[in-house]
Amino acid sequence: MGTTQLESVAEPKYWHLRTVLTEALDSEFTVGEILPNERELAARFGVARATLRQALEQLELEGRLQRRRGVGTTVAPPRVGVDVGVERQAWPGAGDDAWQPVDCAVAAPPAAVADALDTGRDTPVHIVRRSRVSHGQPVAAELLYVPHSSVPDLTGIDAPSGAARARAVLRELQSLALAGQDRAVELGSARADDAKELDRLPGAPVLVVTTRFFTGGRTAALSVATYRADTCRLTFGASGGVEIHPGPQHQAS
Amino acid sequence: MGTTQLESVAEPKYWHLRTVLTEALDSEFTVGEILPNERELAARFGVARATLRQALEQLELEGRLQRRRGVGTTVAPPRVGVDVGVERQAWPGAGDDAWQPVDCAVAAPPAAVADALDTGRDTPVHIVRRSRVSHGQPVAAELLYVPHSSVPDLTGIDAPSGAARARAVLRELQSLALAGQDRAVELGSARADDAKELDRLPGAPVLVVTTRFFTGGRTAALSVATYRADTCRLTFGASGGVEIHPGPQHQAS
Repeated sequence: MGTTQLESVAEPKYWHLRTVLTEALDSEFTVGEILPNERELAARFGVARATLRQALEQLELEGRLQRRRGVGTTVAPPRVGVDVGVERQAWPGAGDDAWQPVDCAVAAPPAAVADALDTGRDTPVHIVRRSRVSHGQPVAAELLYVPHSSVPDLTGIDAPSGAARARAVLRELQSLALAGQDRAVELGSARADDAKELDRLPGAPVLVVTTRFFTGGRTAALSVATYRADTCRLTFGASGGVEIHPGPQHQAS
Repeated sequence: MGTTQLESVAEPKYWHLRTVLTEALDSEFTVGEILPNERELAARFGVARATLRQALEQLELEGRLQRRRGVGTTVAPPRVGVDVGVERQAWPGAGDDAWQPVDCAVAAPPAAVADALDTGRDTPVHIVRRSRVSHGQPVAAELLYVPHSSVPDLTGIDAPSGAARARAVLRELQSLALAGQDRAVELGSARADDAKELDRLPGAPVLVVTTRFFTGGRTAALSVATYRADTCRLTFGASGGVEIHPGPQHQAS
């Protein structure tokens, strides 16, 4: 993946094969169908196994193929559209939130989170873990960082730990006035715990959505949500009810 | 990257090394600094070269490292925040648009685009190519698909081709009433032409932003924008002017 003198580089073999395979997927295969094994595919397209594997990895990255040990390579269904728009300004856990509280801990956050929250680097904060399921599949895992100053009235009596504790933190948060929020999306790799929750291997490509919640001139909470990049497309926009078709990316070669 | 029985898999070696390297980057290295070569790094951390390479690839995916032939591996600057919010509903090319028209062609779009535009699969449309530069670096390439029915008064007299033609299509588009737009983000891989424009190799991971522009109950135009995933974080949100800090992902391990 390193950059190089692009002008002098011919189209790599695996890239040409990827284009040919994409066309074959469009015309000959249906969603869920199992592809012939690597040996047969390499023979059919007259390429080395290593080239074939590179092309398959590429198509997996693009969400066209799924590969599972013991099953083989299957044609992936279109990515699921999951709404992450920011038109509706609301605290996490409010109203028809798509997330399920899983757990809650108190620990020092990563340095960049501490800086964004303007807490000291070693100051513990509440860390609420939530998960998001769509069409029966886990699609995202979230860590929500909440400084003690944002939930000053939280007591430890009713719910000392677990999902109940997570709900208590979310409930307290909602007594603050929400002044605004912003959101950023970037490519990342799944941390070990997120990977397990998402049924991926550590390091699998994920889309990381960072949301900052503002109140009274400061950041009251920060959410880092990790979406499966193979199965999800993140949708934003005016018309939340619009049905999202399979991405043009699926056939845009 | 295939999924497997996660329960029975110990943390892969490269993943552990990635964590160790991340800490070293945070504490010992500064942005732009050149890392020791692979042989020295492998010796220092007591790992095989193959393991080291996997960890370096991971950190490149996460935007922590940049690798260039002839230069070596350097510590990457924080990703640049590029605003792709949809609060401001506007036609492409209107007002303070961040994009530069490059070219314009007439051709049949990919099948999924034709379906979204509800044009026939073999019907040619205007394809406007634009590019987006941020801080002197090309960060994104866009193909904007505009059916003839959206720009019925366009003539070929003044600007038959090139950037001038692209501007003419954008200008005509603005005489339509914009009823709304929506947007989706997903992981993709750079097509050969986009890769060249973005100074990447074909297949490099990119963030694909698809925007549909609606008018009078139909899709008047569709934009497929390809952002470099290594250098960009896409920002959305209420407060367009908020400064985006380096992502928590940068240190969230």
